[in-house]
Amino acid sequence: MSDSVQRSTSIAARAARISRKLGGLSHAQRCEYLRRFSELLRQEAQTIIAENKEDCRAAEDIPAALRSRLAISLQKLDKIIEYPLSILQLDDPLNMLQVNTMLDDGLVLERRSVPLGVVLFIFESRPDAFIQMVSLAMKTGNVLLLKPGRESLRTCKVFFELLTKVTKELDMPSDWCFLLEERAEVHELLRCDDHIDLVIPRGSNEFVRDIMKHSNIPVLGHADGNCHIYIDTDADMELTKRIVVDAKTQYVAVCNAVESLLIHKDRKNDIPALIDVLSSKGVTVRGDIGSQKVDARVIPAEEEDWGMEYLDLVVSLRVVESLDEALECIHRYGSKHTDVIITENKKNADMFLRQVDTANAFVNCSSRFSDGYVYGLGAESGVATGKIHARGPVGLEGLCTYKWILRGQGHIIGDYAGTGSFKHKNLLS
Amino acid sequence: MSDSVQRSTSIAARAARISRKLGGLSHAQRCEYLRRFSELLRQEAQTIIAENKEDCRAAEDIPAALRSRLAISLQKLDKIIEYPLSILQLDDPLNMLQVNTMLDDGLVLERRSVPLGVVLFIFESRPDAFIQMVSLAMKTGNVLLLKPGRESLRTCKVFFELLTKVTKELDMPSDWCFLLEERAEVHELLRCDDHIDLVIPRGSNEFVRDIMKHSNIPVLGHADGNCHIYIDTDADMELTKRIVVDAKTQYVAVCNAVESLLIHKDRKNDIPALIDVLSSKGVTVRGDIGSQKVDARVIPAEEEDWGMEYLDLVVSLRVVESLDEALECIHRYGSKHTDVIITENKKNADMFLRQVDTANAFVNCSSRFSDGYVYGLGAESGVATGKIHARGPVGLEGLCTYKWILRGQGHIIGDYAGTGSFKHKNLLS
Repeated sequence: MSDSVQRSTSIAARAARISRKLGGLSHAQRCEYLRRFSELLRQEAQTIIAENKEDCRAAEDIPAALRSRLAISLQKLDKIIEYPLSILQLDDPLNMLQVNTMLDDGLVLERRSVPLGVVLFIFESRPDAFIQMVSLAMKTGNVLLLKPGRESLRTCKVFFELLTKVTKELDMPSDWCFLLEERAEVHELLRCDDHIDLVIPRGSNEFVRDIMKHSNIPVLGHADGNCHIYIDTDADMELTKRIVVDAKTQYVAVCNAVESLLIHKDRKNDIPALIDVLSSKGVTVRGDIGSQKVDARVIPAEEEDWGMEYLDLVVSLRVVESLDEALECIHRYGSKHTDVIITENKKNADMFLRQVDTANAFVNCSSRFSDGYVYGLGAESGVATGKIHARGPVGLEGLCTYKWILRGQGHIIGDYAGTGSFKHKNLLS
Repeated sequence: MSDSVQRSTSIAARAARISRKLGGLSHAQRCEYLRRFSELLRQEAQTIIAENKEDCRAAEDIPAALRSRLAISLQKLDKIIEYPLSILQLDDPLNMLQVNTMLDDGLVLERRSVPLGVVLFIFESRPDAFIQMVSLAMKTGNVLLLKPGRESLRTCKVFFELLTKVTKELDMPSDWCFLLEERAEVHELLRCDDHIDLVIPRGSNEFVRDIMKHSNIPVLGHADGNCHIYIDTDADMELTKRIVVDAKTQYVAVCNAVESLLIHKDRKNDIPALIDVLSSKGVTVRGDIGSQKVDARVIPAEEEDWGMEYLDLVVSLRVVESLDEALECIHRYGSKHTDVIITENKKNADMFLRQVDTANAFVNCSSRFSDGYVYGLGAESGVATGKIHARGPVGLEGLCTYKWILRGQGHIIGDYAGTGSFKHKNLLS
C-alpha cells in the first residue's frame, strides 16, 4: 500500500468509527453546536472577509463567474451566518419513527431514521457551500470529510478553525469534520466504499463527471443542468416572455437556468416577439430550420446545441409539432434536472407533469425556482438528477438512511414456518 | 456497435419509452392486472407444475440447496398464487403527496411518488422470485426486464406466457415486462445507465458481486449475509439456545441465518450447554482460543472464518470482553445485514441498537425475521445492505422515486432576488 493510500484508508476508517458515536448526540446538542457556530461566524466576520480577500486576490486568473462565487461581501456573509440558524430550526431528522408494526404479541418492529454515516463533500470555489454542508451534516449526525477547492482554501480554513473551536468548547467528538487539503487524498478516498457512505460533488460539469467516474461510492448530484421550457399552444405570451427572460438571464451561470426553448408550431408567429425581449437582454438564439424561417436573427443550431449547457447568454430554440414531440426532445436532450411547460390548458399541464421524467417538473413559472432554500428545505447539499435515494434539491433527508429494529422475547421463525401467521398491526395510526 | 450491444441498447431505450406510459395507469388498473394474473396462475397450476418438473429433471447436477429452491410443489404454488393478491391489497405507492408547500401566493410546491422507470431483475434458480418481482413492478408502475437463471427457464416461460395473456386481455402497454434469455444481453444491459434505473440481483454471493462489479447502474441488494448474534452478560440462556438454534438451523441456505456468535466473557461457562444443543442439530462450531479452552468440541477457527458466510451447519464462535468489542467485531466482519443482541439489560439493548451499523438490528429474537413478508411489506425484491435509497427488506417503496412539481402563475425568481422572501406554508398538516 502506498503512503497516500494508507493515509486515506486510515482517515476513512477513523471517520467511520467516529460516525458511530456522532449518531448518539441529542438534537439539543446538535442544535447548540449550530447556534454557537453561527455566533462565532458573526464574531469573526472581519477575519473571514480579510482572508476571503486574500483568496480573491490570488485567484485573479480564474473566470469572472467563478471569482464572483468565491467573493464574500458583508451582505453575503450575513446570509451565510443565517444558514446554521435556519437549519437548527427545522425538526430533528433523526430517530423519526417511520414504521411501527406489531408482528405478533411481544414482537414489535420499528423503522427509524439514522445518519448515513460518513459523507465526502468535494466542492469548487464557493466557500459558502462549506457552511451549508457543515450545517446539514451536524443536523443529521453525519461525519463530514470536506475538500474545498484550492482557490477558497484560506476562507475555508478560517471556517474550519471556528468549527474546531466549537467542537472543543462543546466537547463533541473531535474530527467529526475533517478538512482535506490534498487532491491525491480525495482520489484515494473515492475508493473507500467500505467506510464512506456518500460522495457529494459540487462544481463544474467536468469536475462532477470526473468524480462520478472515479468513485466506488454512491455519488449524489448532477453533472449537467440542461433545463427546457416548452411553450404550449395555449401559452400566454406575456407570461412566457417574463418567464423565459428570468429563466435565461437572471443568473446565467447556474444549473437551473434554461438552456433550450421548445415552442409549439401553432405559436411560431410569436417567435419574433420572444426574440425581441431576449435580444434586448443580450441573448443569442440558436435555432432549428423552423425557427430560422420565422426570424432571421436565429443562428442555425448544430446537433451539439441541443444537449448543450451554455451557462451563458445563449439559448437554443426548436419548433415542435406537439406536446409529445416536446417530451421526446426533453427526454432525449435534457438532463432530468428542471423542465417547464407554459400553458393555460390544464389538461396539457397535467399530461406534461405526469409524463415528463425529470426531478423538477414546473408549470407557468421560471426554472430558477428549483433550489433547496426556495423549497423550504433549509439549505441544500446540491440538486440530484439521479432517481435513486434522493432527487431534486437535497436537504436533510438525503443525508439520512434508516434502520429496522425488531424487539422480541425469544421469538423464533420456526414457530411461524407452518400455519402460524403474523398480525401486522400498524401501531402508527 | 456490435449486434448484441445494439440489441441491448434498443431493448433498454424501448423500455424507457414504455415506462413513461406505464406510470399513467390508475391504481385500479394495476390491481386488476394482479388479480387476473393470480387467477390465471391458479387455472394453469397443472402446466406450471409440469414444466417445473422438467426444469428440475434437467437440473439434477446442481447442488441440492439450489434444487430445493427450484422445485414448485402444489403447496408452494398456493403461496405463489397469493403474492399478487397480497400486494394488490396494499395502498397505492404512487402519486402519494409527500410534500405540499405554498411558497408564495399562487406558487405551490408538491412532491409526489412516481415509479423509478425501468428495473432490471436478474435472479438464479428460484422461479417464485419471478412472481414476486412482477407483482411489485406492476404495483409500482415500473417496466421490468427479467433475466431468470437457465435452470428455471421453462417454469418462467409459463409464467411469462400467462403474463402476456393478461397484458393483451387488459390492453396494457405490451412489453412492459420483458423476458431476457441470453446472458450476453444482460452484460450489455448493465451498461445502459441512460435508460435503466435500477438493477436487482438475487442469487449467490459470487453472482451478486459479479453484477455489482460490472454495472454502471445502481444495484440494490446484498452480496453477503454475514449475520451475528451477540450473547450479552445479561442474556437469558434458555432464550439464547432457542434463538441460536433457530437462527442457525431452521434454514441454513438463507442470507439471514446466523454465521457468527459472540459471547461475553462472563458467560464463557455457558458455552458447553450452547454447544450441546447445536451439536444435537448437527452444527459444527469453529471458535477462538477463548472458546476452545472451555469446550474441546470447538474446532480452531482460521482468520477467514470470521468473515465467512457458511450457509451450512457451521457457525463461528468468539469470546469478547465487552459490548464494545462485540460491536467492533460486527463492524469489522459483518455485512450490515442482520445483527442481534440477546440480553435482559435494557441499557445494553439500547446501546446496541443505537450503535450497531446494520440494516436490521434485533433484540432477543432470531435473525431469521428480516424479510419483507414478515415485516408486512407484502413481498420483497430482496434485502439491501447498502445505506443509499433503501435498506433492509425492500418492498414497494424501493421501486419508487419522487418528482417535485411546482405550479405558478408566471412567477419569476427575479422578484425574490432582493428582499422578497418565501412563505413556506405547509399545506399537508
